[in-house]
Amino acid sequence: NSSFNQKKHPHRRYNPLLDEWILVSPQRANRPWQGQTEKVAEEKLPAHDPNCYLCSGNLRVNGERNPVYKGVYVFDNDFGSLMKDDIEFSEEQSDFFTLKPERGINRVICFSENHSLTLPEMEADDIKKVVDVWQEQYEELGSEDYISHVQIFENRGSVMGCSNPHPHGQIWAQASIPSTVLKTQENMKKYYEKNGSSLLEDYIKKELEVKERIVLENEDFVALVPFWAIWPYETMVVSKRKAENILQFSDAEKLSFSKILKDLTTKYDNLFEISFPYSAGIHQSPTDGKPHPEWHFHMHFYPPLLRNAEVKKFMVGYEMLAEPQRDITPEQSAEILQNLSVVHYKSDK
Amino acid sequence: NSSFNQKKHPHRRYNPLLDEWILVSPQRANRPWQGQTEKVAEEKLPAHDPNCYLCSGNLRVNGERNPVYKGVYVFDNDFGSLMKDDIEFSEEQSDFFTLKPERGINRVICFSENHSLTLPEMEADDIKKVVDVWQEQYEELGSEDYISHVQIFENRGSVMGCSNPHPHGQIWAQASIPSTVLKTQENMKKYYEKNGSSLLEDYIKKELEVKERIVLENEDFVALVPFWAIWPYETMVVSKRKAENILQFSDAEKLSFSKILKDLTTKYDNLFEISFPYSAGIHQSPTDGKPHPEWHFHMHFYPPLLRNAEVKKFMVGYEMLAEPQRDITPEQSAEILQNLSVVHYKSDK
Ligand SMILES: O=P(O)(O)O[C@H]1O[C@H](CO)[C@@H](O)[C@H](O)[C@H]1O
Ligand SMILES: O=P(O)(O)O[C@H]1O[C@H](CO)[C@@H](O)[C@H](O)[C@H]1O
Repeated sequence: NSSFNQKKHPHRRYNPLLDEWILVSPQRANRPWQGQTEKVAEEKLPAHDPNCYLCSGNLRVNGERNPVYKGVYVFDNDFGSLMKDDIEFSEEQSDFFTLKPERGINRVICFSENHSLTLPEMEADDIKKVVDVWQEQYEELGSEDYISHVQIFENRGSVMGCSNPHPHGQIWAQASIPSTVLKTQENMKKYYEKNGSSLLEDYIKKELEVKERIVLENEDFVALVPFWAIWPYETMVVSKRKAENILQFSDAEKLSFSKILKDLTTKYDNLFEISFPYSAGIHQSPTDGKPHPEWHFHMHFYPPLLRNAEVKKFMVGYEMLAEPQRDITPEQSAEILQNLSVVHYKSDK
Repeated sequence: NSSFNQKKHPHRRYNPLLDEWILVSPQRANRPWQGQTEKVAEEKLPAHDPNCYLCSGNLRVNGERNPVYKGVYVFDNDFGSLMKDDIEFSEEQSDFFTLKPERGINRVICFSENHSLTLPEMEADDIKKVVDVWQEQYEELGSEDYISHVQIFENRGSVMGCSNPHPHGQIWAQASIPSTVLKTQENMKKYYEKNGSSLLEDYIKKELEVKERIVLENEDFVALVPFWAIWPYETMVVSKRKAENILQFSDAEKLSFSKILKDLTTKYDNLFEISFPYSAGIHQSPTDGKPHPEWHFHMHFYPPLLRNAEVKKFMVGYEMLAEPQRDITPEQSAEILQNLSVVHYKSDK
């Protein structure tokens, strides 16, 4: 029997943030694909689209009109998943029918008045204005008495359920800490209590020594393909110092963060020379009023594409029932991302 | 403030199988959809397709030729995610780089030689032949010394990553117990140790009293929309008696199982009058040689469609980062499924 080679042999890896294993099958990377392919829509978009409900000055689905805005614009989602109302509720449930009302606020954040832009095509200074608003919103929503968690995220591209190309993200702020965040928190807490340091701080130190999975680095942030990544080109952006949440970042740090976001999303676009789809979002300390020394600010990028602009990874069957599975290894993906330019393929320079 | 109504107000529900909460937003069910739509491919397929690598007598991608088979046909997956080889491995890993080789066997099961069929269009007696093979395979693979878990599943439809319409499923048998199965097992075990009975046995007893979420029932099995279902039309098929795994079923029970599978998948097809996509798979006791009195055989159906044949539920952004979210309530879905016929829309009767 031959000896183990992680570029060749199926193996499982451990994710300490979720206390879960994933399956890696490098030998499977070259299987032929005869299945569903995605549409690649690369029309040139106008700077203002009269039919877009996110564009400046336009009418929204619910009849309200957007102001004539420049830069970042935030409003309450017209079809939110949560409601602000305080609902009267009398607990009287059996073992198997456990349910409780959930209060919260859903907001939409337009990143720019320019309909045709995306994060990588914006200037770092303009991305910083988005980061400023993320900070303000985290503060404003988090200081509501009943809000324990503020989830900031972006779905980009129609393959990620995004129904409008206008550059925008969302915030779902709610009374409870959501399942995946709570799990992450529990694992960070266990680590913190055992070692007196942040799990992610210790982890990125090791990654910066090895270098293999680092995609980008600046003074304050690092972008890497986690050792336990499940999506083909999944990455994580982590602050070098242990900040528990976005409130702790200075102006300089917010600019560093904006720059690494610009460079990372530019590399993504350059990978297949398309507007690269993903879901991305921030994990940080909840706003439940408790101390959270275990938390370490980070942002996940989950892009679905696998081989090219048309073939995505399907997380189905085995993945839904058993555990996440990937073909190309995190190290192979990191190498590909490392070698890509930070100059956007559409730019003239 | 108004009082709580689960058909109207956002709430969270508890899933005891995974010890996780989900978010339900019934008020959001009618939001307009302007996003990506799925292709509905309803061409009539031939009984034998010369280009199909699963059809009887045809050449496969790797150059092997299928025998001329009738009924069910099993073979090793040409592009498996696992390898049988016993790989030499010396542990020498740090905290954050935990990895181990994983051995296993991947098989493909053609449900019929007829390229144009699907489970709901097969006779119950012919579905039973598939169930017989699931039983044989679980026994054969599970009795391999190094195999601790046998995952039986089906990805149906191109939207679920299925690249070939020929009716078929898969088996991934492996050395470890996969993450989601292990989590389910831990929760069943806690319940069993506390109550001396099976979590699912007690659960379906309660559901059979309430009736609200029951979709189908026969002598030995029940199909229902779990109280904590996340996919719009998610269901679970559970054996009425606590069988730990498929080996414990008699011929009569296997026929009951086949009948409920036929009726459930027929209702699914009738919902939007299309070949209804889903991932489905069995959860049952692992084959790790240990006693598993906590286990109770069940099969999950995870269908992605939401409003119609073209609009699916996107589990993205918030769902990937925070927690699963649904709009239509499990009770509303159950009612819709209850009212559908068990006569297939394509049949002449
Ligand atoms: O093996 P298949 O059918 O080609 O592949 C499909 O099912 C597998 C198991 O659910 C997934 O890992 C793949 O992403 C999916 O495309
Ligand atoms: O609110 P949107 O953008 O219309 O909806 C999209 O993002 C949400 C949050 O990730 C998901 O729940 C929806 O399934 C998805 O279509």
